[in-house]
Amino acid sequence: MNRPDGRAVAALRPVKITRSVLMHPEGSCLIEMGNTHVLCTATVEETVPRWMREGKGGWVTAEYGMLPRSTNERIQRGRVGGRGMEIQRLIGRALRAITDTDALGERCITVDCDVLQADGGTRCASVTGGFVALVEAMDWLRRERNAFTRLPLRDLVAAVSVGVVQNQPVLDLCYAEDFEAQVDMNVVATGRGLLVEVQGTAEGFPFTRQRHEEMLDLAMSGVKELVGIQREVLGELV
Amino acid sequence: MNRPDGRAVAALRPVKITRSVLMHPEGSCLIEMGNTHVLCTATVEETVPRWMREGKGGWVTAEYGMLPRSTNERIQRGRVGGRGMEIQRLIGRALRAITDTDALGERCITVDCDVLQADGGTRCASVTGGFVALVEAMDWLRRERNAFTRLPLRDLVAAVSVGVVQNQPVLDLCYAEDFEAQVDMNVVATGRGLLVEVQGTAEGFPFTRQRHEEMLDLAMSGVKELVGIQREVLGELV
Amino acid sequence: MNRPDGRAVAALRPVKITRSVLMHPEGSCLIEMGNTHVLCTATVEETVPRWMREGKGGWVTAEYGMLPRSTNERIQRGRVGGRGMEIQRLIGRALRAITDTDALGERCITVDCDVLQADGGTRCASVTGGFVALVEAMDWLRRERNAFTRLPLRDLVAAVSVGVVQNQPVLDLCYAEDFEAQVDMNVVATGRGLLVEVQGTAEGFPFTRQRHEEMLDLAMSGVKELVGIQREVLGELV
Amino acid sequence: MNRPDGRAVAALRPVKITRSVLMHPEGSCLIEMGNTHVLCTATVEETVPRWMREGKGGWVTAEYGMLPRSTNERIQRGRVGGRGMEIQRLIGRALRAITDTDALGERCITVDCDVLQADGGTRCASVTGGFVALVEAMDWLRRERNAFTRLPLRDLVAAVSVGVVQNQPVLDLCYAEDFEAQVDMNVVATGRGLLVEVQGTAEGFPFTRQRHEEMLDLAMSGVKELVGIQREVLGELV
Amino acid sequence: MNRPDGRAVAALRPVKITRSVLMHPEGSCLIEMGNTHVLCTATVEETVPRWMREGKGGWVTAEYGMLPRSTNERIQRGRVGGRGMEIQRLIGRALRAITDTDALGERCITVDCDVLQADGGTRCASVTGGFVALVEAMDWLRRERNAFTRLPLRDLVAAVSVGVVQNQPVLDLCYAEDFEAQVDMNVVATGRGLLVEVQGTAEGFPFTRQRHEEMLDLAMSGVKELVGIQREVLGELV
Amino acid sequence: MNRPDGRAVAALRPVKITRSVLMHPEGSCLIEMGNTHVLCTATVEETVPRWMREGKGGWVTAEYGMLPRSTNERIQRGRVGGRGMEIQRLIGRALRAITDTDALGERCITVDCDVLQADGGTRCASVTGGFVALVEAMDWLRRERNAFTRLPLRDLVAAVSVGVVQNQPVLDLCYAEDFEAQVDMNVVATGRGLLVEVQGTAEGFPFTRQRHEEMLDLAMSGVKELVGIQREVLGELV
Repeated sequence: MNRPDGRAVAALRPVKITRSVLMHPEGSCLIEMGNTHVLCTATVEETVPRWMREGKGGWVTAEYGMLPRSTNERIQRGRVGGRGMEIQRLIGRALRAITDTDALGERCITVDCDVLQADGGTRCASVTGGFVALVEAMDWLRRERNAFTRLPLRDLVAAVSVGVVQNQPVLDLCYAEDFEAQVDMNVVATGRGLLVEVQGTAEGFPFTRQRHEEMLDLAMSGVKELVGIQREVLGELV
Repeated sequence: MNRPDGRAVAALRPVKITRSVLMHPEGSCLIEMGNTHVLCTATVEETVPRWMREGKGGWVTAEYGMLPRSTNERIQRGRVGGRGMEIQRLIGRALRAITDTDALGERCITVDCDVLQADGGTRCASVTGGFVALVEAMDWLRRERNAFTRLPLRDLVAAVSVGVVQNQPVLDLCYAEDFEAQVDMNVVATGRGLLVEVQGTAEGFPFTRQRHEEMLDLAMSGVKELVGIQREVLGELV
Repeated sequence: MNRPDGRAVAALRPVKITRSVLMHPEGSCLIEMGNTHVLCTATVEETVPRWMREGKGGWVTAEYGMLPRSTNERIQRGRVGGRGMEIQRLIGRALRAITDTDALGERCITVDCDVLQADGGTRCASVTGGFVALVEAMDWLRRERNAFTRLPLRDLVAAVSVGVVQNQPVLDLCYAEDFEAQVDMNVVATGRGLLVEVQGTAEGFPFTRQRHEEMLDLAMSGVKELVGIQREVLGELV
Repeated sequence: MNRPDGRAVAALRPVKITRSVLMHPEGSCLIEMGNTHVLCTATVEETVPRWMREGKGGWVTAEYGMLPRSTNERIQRGRVGGRGMEIQRLIGRALRAITDTDALGERCITVDCDVLQADGGTRCASVTGGFVALVEAMDWLRRERNAFTRLPLRDLVAAVSVGVVQNQPVLDLCYAEDFEAQVDMNVVATGRGLLVEVQGTAEGFPFTRQRHEEMLDLAMSGVKELVGIQREVLGELV
Repeated sequence: MNRPDGRAVAALRPVKITRSVLMHPEGSCLIEMGNTHVLCTATVEETVPRWMREGKGGWVTAEYGMLPRSTNERIQRGRVGGRGMEIQRLIGRALRAITDTDALGERCITVDCDVLQADGGTRCASVTGGFVALVEAMDWLRRERNAFTRLPLRDLVAAVSVGVVQNQPVLDLCYAEDFEAQVDMNVVATGRGLLVEVQGTAEGFPFTRQRHEEMLDLAMSGVKELVGIQREVLGELV
Repeated sequence: MNRPDGRAVAALRPVKITRSVLMHPEGSCLIEMGNTHVLCTATVEETVPRWMREGKGGWVTAEYGMLPRSTNERIQRGRVGGRGMEIQRLIGRALRAITDTDALGERCITVDCDVLQADGGTRCASVTGGFVALVEAMDWLRRERNAFTRLPLRDLVAAVSVGVVQNQPVLDLCYAEDFEAQVDMNVVATGRGLLVEVQGTAEGFPFTRQRHEEMLDLAMSGVKELVGIQREVLGELV
């Protein structure tokens, strides 16, 4: 099987994470997974959402957006439709899964993931890059606010897509592959290899249990590699 | 382990599906899974959404709503938030997975799932009941419109939730169980045992691969039972 | 004159009110007037709207909705247009007319009327059924909260439609009659026979004063009958 | 009984209707009923709303607004709430009741009623003044477009409020009276004395049938007087 | 060059400002500049917007609207588009430029400018008339509330449009001139001849620096004349 | 006078324009003016807005947005307030001023300006960078669509801010200067030195005519320099 960019079925696209790319946010990075580029920022607020009861620690939430020409056809500005909501809820859950919200204290960290250029896998790139921005913001709280001595983290977290293209499970689909995939799965997992989210969808091609396992295998190897890259760019912070 | 209603860990709640409960829609049913009651209707329109190209067959879509007092605290009317969008997209994908949209012809069937009373598992009940309403609407098209001689169906489809409660995987969680679950998974599968959707989420408690497999096993047995009930109420239609 | 269902001009459709149909709300009923079915719930909140001054007692308000396929053509979800607002304001005024809001105390009771199936007269069924849900909620406040020893009620209230069809005043119009009516009137009145609302409308056929009186006569007899049914289902509560 | 402005119980406030007050609209007038001042305009469009079937004649519709400081407390701009919708629907029905929409031809006339200053009775003033603007627009169609030789009118129409204040039925309430009224009724009737709308409301004080008749009597005399004033200002047009 | 109404290039249209035209607002006027008629009101509130810090004095803000038939084609009601927002921000800045907000005290004055009839120059008429309404409201605060002994004013303010029509700079354009203008400029200036806003725009015809100076000269003479009229109608208040 | 970054009063910040930074849009650039970074894209559509009459050539329009953490405090996503509308209207007018819309043909080019990082002068950077993206899109139309042989351009266009800080006119204000400026002016001008927009605003400090001229002088020199940079990066295209 030939992938559009000649990759092996189990290979990620080239991944590059650049930290601290903006002057204003408490944490930020630009993550590039092939031609998919997402700008992730983390904002610290010294309040928690109203629905949280007092004394219940902090909160991490996420928002996701696409710039109008991040895609091939221009998207209307300012609409978060069903897909966008689904994605930003996924990112938020992923980041809370590895945050010790009690230790965070009564603060809220909002991670914004804005897609500058989309070529498949934007939600996974958002989780992986969003984690880096989150850690920077936690470090900022430690350095600038003496909020804690140890970052309120329980693990690292990253995400990757897998899919079945021409009856072959492949890792980290670009848009052209995603478009013709029979099954599409997004997996969020931690540095220790625990699962946080498994979202497999097969609108036109219901799939067997065995196929499900093969896809999960591929995904776990991809997440492992991504966590390695996170460790490199974050250095002693994690 | 004691479940609130004394069920075995692998037991469904009492399921009851009543067909043709309303005078106006082309298909309808009331599905009761324990105290969760969802009114499902199917509406036939002789057009397809604008974004579909001509000659590309039909479409099935779904909408999901909760009546203001379907839950313990009153919900504000008329808002479809992120959760609601996520759910109605899931229902739509599930129903399209078993529909032969080419054979359906250039029509759209909209399945509305309105929760009259919620006690956990409303999205799964919506898929299972939505399928029954959809089949009734297809039958209406055959009888009243001579649209086709064979219903444009490829398989049956149903959904069930599984979760980990007190470190024990259990099937078909009621709200009290869902509330304290460490992992929450919704599985949509077909009458032939193929997977359509696997959505596992563990905000606070990332889980092992093995746990994932146990949960999938439970879910597959639950779907099998639900498909049996669908066959009973639909009789010769499927 | 022949009515579609063979009724006499002064006859109501078969009326059935089923109490306590849902597990969550403080009060609820399902009212069926022929093929018109409305689910009414009453929600107690221990606050009053902001615009009410302190020490001024409680409030009763209403909301009205139609499920997407309660009618012959599917209605778009989540829109309360001009007609819906008009109706829910009418229901609210009717219920406040018989509530002793001072004795209710600083609480708000919200009555939701959701039309499951529409065949004319939904606003009147909502008033009549909404009253039953309201009384249940007041009874809940007495039993569960010791809010008062006597229900804060001044009277019973019910509503009915009358219209002129083929130059003949008729009671309790079904949709087919409503559609061709020359004049349409909704009357809300109390158990003691006092008027709360008279809303007569004749877009295409302005009518004489005498016709107005005939219609009011019919309506008063209809309300009397409905109040009798309310007394039966509510028993000692009223 | 003493009314705030010393009027007899059956007396209207001073009424003044000034025609053709604006340069752009096809019809316009300023109606003053005491301190209530409403600017009414009529706009002709050579299309009908989409939901009207072809060959079914024309349409008359109305919109109602209040300028931010038409009232004692500033109103937020641009919101048409439940009350506003109710009012503009009433005005539209009233004007259609006397329009021969078949003879109007496939056009839509929109009557805008904007309250410059409010002192009670704005909806009734809008009907009475809106009729004058409508007739001017019909005359414009005849003169400028040769749309017809006879105005497509079946009758004149006007509206007035009545209420029960201190147990006394009174005509044409100003705001101070409206505020303390026990019953509030708006009556729309035609030049020939036929009823178009009767809207009586008694939130706190349900009323007897006899009171209802007394109020209707007062209202009919008020409408008669208003129609006389319309005849004067419209001259040969009606 | 012939102007549509025969005016000299440097002549204003007939200007008329009528004070205190409404019973409810603390300040009001009707300004007529030829066929452009704007109703201006000023509302006093004893609070300041939330974003203002305490002890920082008061605020003046403005809103701008057009009645549906103030123009030749009916405008949809209730929408403040980009143009409207631009205009109301301009009016607000102009009025704050001459208000001593410290001396005003912790209050907010909202100036509403509603265009009854539009024939070009509505934003400038709104500034000029809005100033008169603002001064009335300040005077009301002094007389009725003893808020201060001297009005918190630093200067007078008025605005006028200039444009280049057929290569000729002209003052105070009516709509027909505005429509064909090559350059359009609005100038806000004070009674002492200081500039507050200069907004020159040339979509199709970029213009020279010299043209810019000629237009400013014309505008300054127009503002001077308008300030003279304001002084007349406000008498001893300014 | 000392500027925060040590610049001379008449000096621009370091300007860098990087062309073709994204894979999807027909034209794009990243413009950096000091710490202000704006991503500009140009999208070609082969239709014109509905309100344009046929045979009337093409259209250029602009939209402006800020990413949530482009500023020091996080901005809520997806709202275009009054300021944003004002800015995008300005950008659109500026770009149309130098476009030969007849020669462009019946197409629409939409220029999106998204602020990645804000430090004052974002609207001016948007005009200057938007022009570069627009020229790239025109070049794409020539190369890929043979739409014309000569780009439909009449001139180049750029924009710069000037202000009065501590009584001293200065060029190209950063945010800290903008915040304390007494007067704020944005000037859009063409490569040939003609004015397109002059927008001077002095909320708190009305200014003399002479000050106005000094600011315009500064601005014209700044635009000249920016146009030089545009010529460099666009090379033979202009």
